[in-house]
Amino acid sequence: MVSAPPPPPAAQVLVASNRGPVSYSLRDDGGLDARRGGGGLVSGLSAIGAEADALWVCAALGDGDREAVRRGVGEPGVRMLDIEESVHSDAYNGIANSVLWFVHHMLYQTPLEPVFDEEFRRQWAAYETYNRAFAQALADQAADGAAVLIQDYHLALAPGMLRELRPDLRIGHFSHTPWAPVDYFRMLPDDIAEQLLRGLLGADRTCFLTRRWADAFTACCTELLGADSLSGTRIGVHGLGADADFLRERAHRPDVDERLEALREQIGPGRKTIVRVDRTELSKNIVRGLLAYRHLLESRPEWRERVVHIAFAYPSRQDLAVYRAYTAEVQRLAEEINATYGTAGWTPVVLHVKDDFARSLAAYRLADAALVNPIRDGMNLVAKEIPVISERGCALVLSREAGAYEELGEDALAINPYDVTGTAQALHEALTMPDGERSERSKRLAVAATALPPQQWFLDQLRALREGG
Amino acid sequence: MVSAPPPPPAAQVLVASNRGPVSYSLRDDGGLDARRGGGGLVSGLSAIGAEADALWVCAALGDGDREAVRRGVGEPGVRMLDIEESVHSDAYNGIANSVLWFVHHMLYQTPLEPVFDEEFRRQWAAYETYNRAFAQALADQAADGAAVLIQDYHLALAPGMLRELRPDLRIGHFSHTPWAPVDYFRMLPDDIAEQLLRGLLGADRTCFLTRRWADAFTACCTELLGADSLSGTRIGVHGLGADADFLRERAHRPDVDERLEALREQIGPGRKTIVRVDRTELSKNIVRGLLAYRHLLESRPEWRERVVHIAFAYPSRQDLAVYRAYTAEVQRLAEEINATYGTAGWTPVVLHVKDDFARSLAAYRLADAALVNPIRDGMNLVAKEIPVISERGCALVLSREAGAYEELGEDALAINPYDVTGTAQALHEALTMPDGERSERSKRLAVAATALPPQQWFLDQLRALREGG
Repeated sequence: MVSAPPPPPAAQVLVASNRGPVSYSLRDDGGLDARRGGGGLVSGLSAIGAEADALWVCAALGDGDREAVRRGVGEPGVRMLDIEESVHSDAYNGIANSVLWFVHHMLYQTPLEPVFDEEFRRQWAAYETYNRAFAQALADQAADGAAVLIQDYHLALAPGMLRELRPDLRIGHFSHTPWAPVDYFRMLPDDIAEQLLRGLLGADRTCFLTRRWADAFTACCTELLGADSLSGTRIGVHGLGADADFLRERAHRPDVDERLEALREQIGPGRKTIVRVDRTELSKNIVRGLLAYRHLLESRPEWRERVVHIAFAYPSRQDLAVYRAYTAEVQRLAEEINATYGTAGWTPVVLHVKDDFARSLAAYRLADAALVNPIRDGMNLVAKEIPVISERGCALVLSREAGAYEELGEDALAINPYDVTGTAQALHEALTMPDGERSERSKRLAVAATALPPQQWFLDQLRALREGG
Repeated sequence: MVSAPPPPPAAQVLVASNRGPVSYSLRDDGGLDARRGGGGLVSGLSAIGAEADALWVCAALGDGDREAVRRGVGEPGVRMLDIEESVHSDAYNGIANSVLWFVHHMLYQTPLEPVFDEEFRRQWAAYETYNRAFAQALADQAADGAAVLIQDYHLALAPGMLRELRPDLRIGHFSHTPWAPVDYFRMLPDDIAEQLLRGLLGADRTCFLTRRWADAFTACCTELLGADSLSGTRIGVHGLGADADFLRERAHRPDVDERLEALREQIGPGRKTIVRVDRTELSKNIVRGLLAYRHLLESRPEWRERVVHIAFAYPSRQDLAVYRAYTAEVQRLAEEINATYGTAGWTPVVLHVKDDFARSLAAYRLADAALVNPIRDGMNLVAKEIPVISERGCALVLSREAGAYEELGEDALAINPYDVTGTAQALHEALTMPDGERSERSKRLAVAATALPPQQWFLDQLRALREGG
């Protein structure tokens, strides 16, 4: 199932993740176009490029990627695994995104879901196959005693599988999500829960974005496997930060300037802005964010005509019905608010659903207040990026259920994401914060947000893994 | 708002609960009929009747109750509070059953609910008023140093309120539900979460059905209020048992015999039975129970024609849309199973939705296997009652998320309630358990289930409260 290009020399540092740093698309003429990915994670993991004998193992994700593997096309230092499409789909959509994501973010409507039945077992077998393909590829290509950094919930079994194949390696795993509390994690069938924990415990170091998620993981191990289970694995915490240099440069290119002008026109002169930028993900809490904004306009009419909520909600996982329904509810509610409160010259909610990174950066630049209110979030990089980019300093309304809260809580306006009244109150405080205070807080937020830039985040882990720290 | 009959002499022992031991209905001729309630809790709390100077404070729940209060009709030792209907409805339906119940049982579809908005705040004020009415009535009628036992999540604020009014009293509180894990409990707005914890901490003793729920409560106190918060309150665990004497007598009256015959006819000769009896409550997991049964018939065709699933699902909270939808799904799925597998002489699922206690007891008597699979349950008395009554000994398939699991786990077949495949496997094991083993286990289950009969359960608490234990 795994069709490989000629093996490169044995690697000293390896990264494994579902999505790699490059993707291919097929041109009409049959040629292949390569595109480098962006974002904090890719940026951090790309620090591997500075290492000699480095290899990034990832999955071929589309027809272009698969064709590239078949033709033996590839970038140096990247190995794509051509895992059978149905296996990948069951592992990625069926298990990783529909079960593990839901468990760690506590998203289920528990009276009816999850249902662990035969279909689940079939998908679970695919998840095992997918993890084994990664473990095998890593085992095949790692030099003696090499360091391997395995990423995220897609690859929770790979550390243990790799440990069995190659006891000599130094294996790290990093979870970019939250970790579920014990009472939620044990929804999983017992054998599956145990496999997941033992998979991560196969690593020498198992790492999380915050102390809170690390503690939740160790609580699950202690409760389900016994305290002894943790003796062979060190637990690390590395809070991925924003990439200030990249952001500051990227945010001032002409395409961003252009979108800034267009947004200013949409907003109208003299109005304050509340900015949010998210994928339309169930955990991001966009609906309650709109409810809070509606309550602000209702309970404090002085804000009417004087504020605009810029909400970018980029479609995500639209192959799942519950995500489509959520997206529809976001749009319905935005329209309802505009119909109720809008005037000839004022649109209360400016909602964009088409992904446009340059426009996101433009919104960051003009934000007076940022709304980051997830019900549960591993870290949330938007909360870290906006203070870096905002031009007038930005008051940050931040859910205490976001991992970023551990680092930014002091200068953010903390909210309980389920508390719509409290969120509306925090938005009001954000909009009325004196300029001096807002500017000072925003500076401190930017400092805290960039304390561990992506490449440093990666190199810290690599060093700790090698040093046995 | 509280209209009282002439005050009885100051009471030495008081019980407070939303529902009292008696209810009134209006006859067509304008007279009032009184009816004593049943069930384990009423039976346990009725032990108060043996105490001199005892008083049971409860809410008037319907027109009959309210009319009884207005006419000054009442049983000795019972005081009904005529709380304004809209206040009662907001407190009982709005807060207790739609928020607190959902939090402690982890029932929310978190991406969209709960929403804590102005409407919630309005209902919360009613919950405070309702609790204050109880606290005031108890304060008015308790003798110096009297013992007061306050029941359940409807009255979580009353202990603290009563403590302020009457520091001399010995106050106990008992939670008949599970308690939420910290990460779920903190969904509640911060001030509300704190009020609830401080309300219970106003008691001298705060009691739970199992160690697990007690630990969850202390974790919430430690995390949200600090470890010091617990210093003034003792935590008790009292696992309410089945009332063996009552059940054995009641289960052999003629009305039960009659229903037993009717059920036998429906089932057909020589067939085994899997029995479940529940309110159609979101936490009871009836839908996954039917899915597990369907999987049993599908994966082990040898059971077709040889087993009948007797499912009694009595309507509950049908004023809430989510409960109506759940009830409809139960009926749809039962019909689907019968349409798929049923034959001329065999109905695979016998579903009854009309509450009939005598028929429930009849089903207990003929059960070969009992299915008790809640996703979360304070105790679950059905799991304790069936082994006491079943005639041939009954294999108990029991969710480990039920409080009863702490006491019955050893002789039950334990299941993860989300694991439909595992539940089907446990049902198969239950049906194939050798007669001798089933009978032995069932006897031990009955012993464990009746270890703390309701009246003893009550008297233990009263003694511990008085002795400061």
